[in-house]
Amino acid sequence: MQLPISVDQEADTPLQQQLAGSLRRMILDGTLLPGTKVPSSRSFSVQLGVARNTVVLAYDRLISEGFLEARVAKATYVCTELPVSDLADLPPQKETRLDPAKDLDRSAVCEMVLNLFSSEGTRPPLDFRIGRPDHSLFPIAIWRRLLLETLGGLKHALFEYADPAGHAFLREALRSHLRVARGVKVDIEQVIIVAGCQQGFGLTGRLLDIYGKDVVIEDPCYRGAEFAFKYLGSNLIPAPVDRDGIETDHLPRNGARLVYVTPSHQFPLGHTMSVARRQKLLAWAEETGTYILEDDYDSDFRYHSSPLAALHAIDCAERVIYLGTFSKSIGPNLRLGYMIVPKHLVRAAHATKAIMDNGHPWLEQVVAGEFIHSGSFENHLIKVRKKYLDRRNLVMDRIQAAFGPSQFDGIDGGMHLTWTLPDHVKCSAYEFQQKAKRLGVGVYSLRESPALQTKPFPGDDRIVLLGYSGLQEDGIEAAIHKLSQLGEHSIRRPRCSQVSQLYDFAQPHPQ
Amino acid sequence: MQLPISVDQEADTPLQQQLAGSLRRMILDGTLLPGTKVPSSRSFSVQLGVARNTVVLAYDRLISEGFLEARVAKATYVCTELPVSDLADLPPQKETRLDPAKDLDRSAVCEMVLNLFSSEGTRPPLDFRIGRPDHSLFPIAIWRRLLLETLGGLKHALFEYADPAGHAFLREALRSHLRVARGVKVDIEQVIIVAGCQQGFGLTGRLLDIYGKDVVIEDPCYRGAEFAFKYLGSNLIPAPVDRDGIETDHLPRNGARLVYVTPSHQFPLGHTMSVARRQKLLAWAEETGTYILEDDYDSDFRYHSSPLAALHAIDCAERVIYLGTFSKSIGPNLRLGYMIVPKHLVRAAHATKAIMDNGHPWLEQVVAGEFIHSGSFENHLIKVRKKYLDRRNLVMDRIQAAFGPSQFDGIDGGMHLTWTLPDHVKCSAYEFQQKAKRLGVGVYSLRESPALQTKPFPGDDRIVLLGYSGLQEDGIEAAIHKLSQLGEHSIRRPRCSQVSQLYDFAQPHPQ
Repeated sequence: MQLPISVDQEADTPLQQQLAGSLRRMILDGTLLPGTKVPSSRSFSVQLGVARNTVVLAYDRLISEGFLEARVAKATYVCTELPVSDLADLPPQKETRLDPAKDLDRSAVCEMVLNLFSSEGTRPPLDFRIGRPDHSLFPIAIWRRLLLETLGGLKHALFEYADPAGHAFLREALRSHLRVARGVKVDIEQVIIVAGCQQGFGLTGRLLDIYGKDVVIEDPCYRGAEFAFKYLGSNLIPAPVDRDGIETDHLPRNGARLVYVTPSHQFPLGHTMSVARRQKLLAWAEETGTYILEDDYDSDFRYHSSPLAALHAIDCAERVIYLGTFSKSIGPNLRLGYMIVPKHLVRAAHATKAIMDNGHPWLEQVVAGEFIHSGSFENHLIKVRKKYLDRRNLVMDRIQAAFGPSQFDGIDGGMHLTWTLPDHVKCSAYEFQQKAKRLGVGVYSLRESPALQTKPFPGDDRIVLLGYSGLQEDGIEAAIHKLSQLGEHSIRRPRCSQVSQLYDFAQPHPQ
Repeated sequence: MQLPISVDQEADTPLQQQLAGSLRRMILDGTLLPGTKVPSSRSFSVQLGVARNTVVLAYDRLISEGFLEARVAKATYVCTELPVSDLADLPPQKETRLDPAKDLDRSAVCEMVLNLFSSEGTRPPLDFRIGRPDHSLFPIAIWRRLLLETLGGLKHALFEYADPAGHAFLREALRSHLRVARGVKVDIEQVIIVAGCQQGFGLTGRLLDIYGKDVVIEDPCYRGAEFAFKYLGSNLIPAPVDRDGIETDHLPRNGARLVYVTPSHQFPLGHTMSVARRQKLLAWAEETGTYILEDDYDSDFRYHSSPLAALHAIDCAERVIYLGTFSKSIGPNLRLGYMIVPKHLVRAAHATKAIMDNGHPWLEQVVAGEFIHSGSFENHLIKVRKKYLDRRNLVMDRIQAAFGPSQFDGIDGGMHLTWTLPDHVKCSAYEFQQKAKRLGVGVYSLRESPALQTKPFPGDDRIVLLGYSGLQEDGIEAAIHKLSQLGEHSIRRPRCSQVSQLYDFAQPHPQ
């Protein structure tokens, strides 16, 4: 079979990419049906007049994407189960198309998305779920009072269309807060209120028009961001992370449209991006014209030392878009977050937000603004930070008591840490999670976390993620007591000196 | 100076467009600095081997976009003040491909978008602005009480991630309401809470993946919808409307991905789509596999006869996505709307909403649900409907008193009507608007309304749009008294019988 495909030797796009693109399109539009055998790399390379390796690389790419599959005798076929029934890849109009109804219903992606974002449902009763605030710590009486005052004083506001970029009062309060807390110095126009980080991902993607362009993500990274960028039609390029953050040596040399990073507390591994790495990342972004999306999702909680200034604060080239949220510090159902955009993107960002939903509901914006302005937010953060630090320490202490000396990471800030299973626990993190679940305890392996991991790395199957913010102290005690059944029997309790040498159980910094 | 630009004579893209694109990129990426003189059209056409007019047209385009400026002696320069903050045309990474979806004057669009969605600002004091509810009619005390009760009873809800499709309580309340009010019978899963109609446009566009596909819009139609579809990369196909709604004979024979209509009260002209036209539209949609987005933005207000059932209610082929909003019935700053999707799109729609922003803030959802459930919403609608009818009648009465017998359209429902200027008013609607503005009265010509009109039609420059919901009775009297200066002097007041023959000032139907 000769496919009606040709490549343009003069184009800037690499040949293998052209080839993969043409094949993908033919599969998606139904020209190449599932189960069809594609030409051998040898014959196809002759037909196209390209190196055989070009065809091999294109096939490899499509195999990894799930469009092709290699079968016996090295023949390659169009997959019988295509990854097409994605949200966006509805079959095209005209006669050839499949039935969108059936197609969407089969969609594995739909399932994954809805699982990721689903409400609580069937979680274990003692759950170390990641990123959940403890509602009992929130000053609900203050919030209620502010809500009433706001509604009384500003009731006309409900009946007007407002600034799509958000209520000026909240933006001003955030501007002041971020200047102190994160070193971010901006004009109020640069602050845009969004419906949580999730909308921030989408707004960034649409603002930068990432359709068909490269977006670098950390590997592993948060799936919510992955979905947002993928479904705006970008090409995701995973880059590995180590203890210093994203590995800048692995960034594409020619840059990308956007790189998405979590410098304060890498999601999910918890590392803080080092200063040197931050500088390298910024230099690369400036040199290549890449934008950086800095997701500072849980930076309100920092336990050791001062927090590093945000990437945005040390960016001289106007490459950084900063994203923060009240989902961790107040509550996720507020759906309230904020973006800081470079000055040259201000108008476009306002317009994009307007096109997306014409702005955020007004009432809780004003309440949140008053909450910050009155100092209640800072008081709340101080209280919560202390509590979460105590809980983090309790988790580490009890786990070492039950399982012996253990390696923890990501403990400097945030709301979760990683625990590397000690050698004497013979099962994988995934199996550990399953066993824990049967005991009524929720712990998370990378595989079952809200993280996308595209490549294995050494020790990844030993890592257990523990969110410690949502469980109260007695819950933590009870949970780890149950977990202790999964370790070796009769573990010696480690000497205290050992523990405290390994981890300085510091007080939260006073800021 | 010879610029390193060449054009591809074989490409599908017109030469002038290629040339303008290359120049724009060189300006945006700083290769061509502000103030640089570009080659004369004559020498450049020789260099490129193209007709001189090709260069002239490319320059003209860039001049209109604000990238180039013509100075003395016909020399052309890169503008010193560049229109940088475009929506998406940021300094590009290496990309040769021209994308039709992006071939837009982004900067001008930015301006238009922000104007459309901007807050009130410098509106005339007596403003017949379209689609503005009267806040004095809203039972704010009831709303306040519900808010308090909700916050007291459900305070934990703030701290959880919830169902991205919206709070079940509101969705159930809406389901019941729409069954009675609009004949729409659906399962709760089909109801999705969105941040107003504007987000509904975007959600529909992303759900149906309209990128690169055809979307039919009414001509004229609401600009907010136009922007939403355009910036998701679709090809907009305007179809004319007459007094029966969208002209089905002008729909593309092979269908489209989506057609966007306003059957209850065509925006902006106000006609109700006839039953015959509804059936034709549905038949065409079924036959061609096109989806219909039914924007029912102001259907809560119906004055004459029973409202026609929604398109959704008579759709047997599951082609209709229904969109409603609380922006007109309660207030726009609530940013609360709802979509009804066909069953086969339920899961994909939930997932798309989750990816977009992970759901709407919870508090006012529950309050709105309680507002409906308790009957307060229906009471409110009855009261407001009566008021708006009175105001509509007052507007027509006073205008005819001042200007003589006049033609009004779009009076059966909604919050605005159209008035065709009588012959003795010699100026165009646009000029009338300008003169009215100088008198402190806001009236709207099609040209200055939030409507996109792509083709002129007979009489379009005689049409004045008057929103009567936001002005109270004394305001209406005062405004039209001022306007009367713009008519012929000493107009005879029409005989009452004449008026009532023309327009049956009916009471609102009792529902």
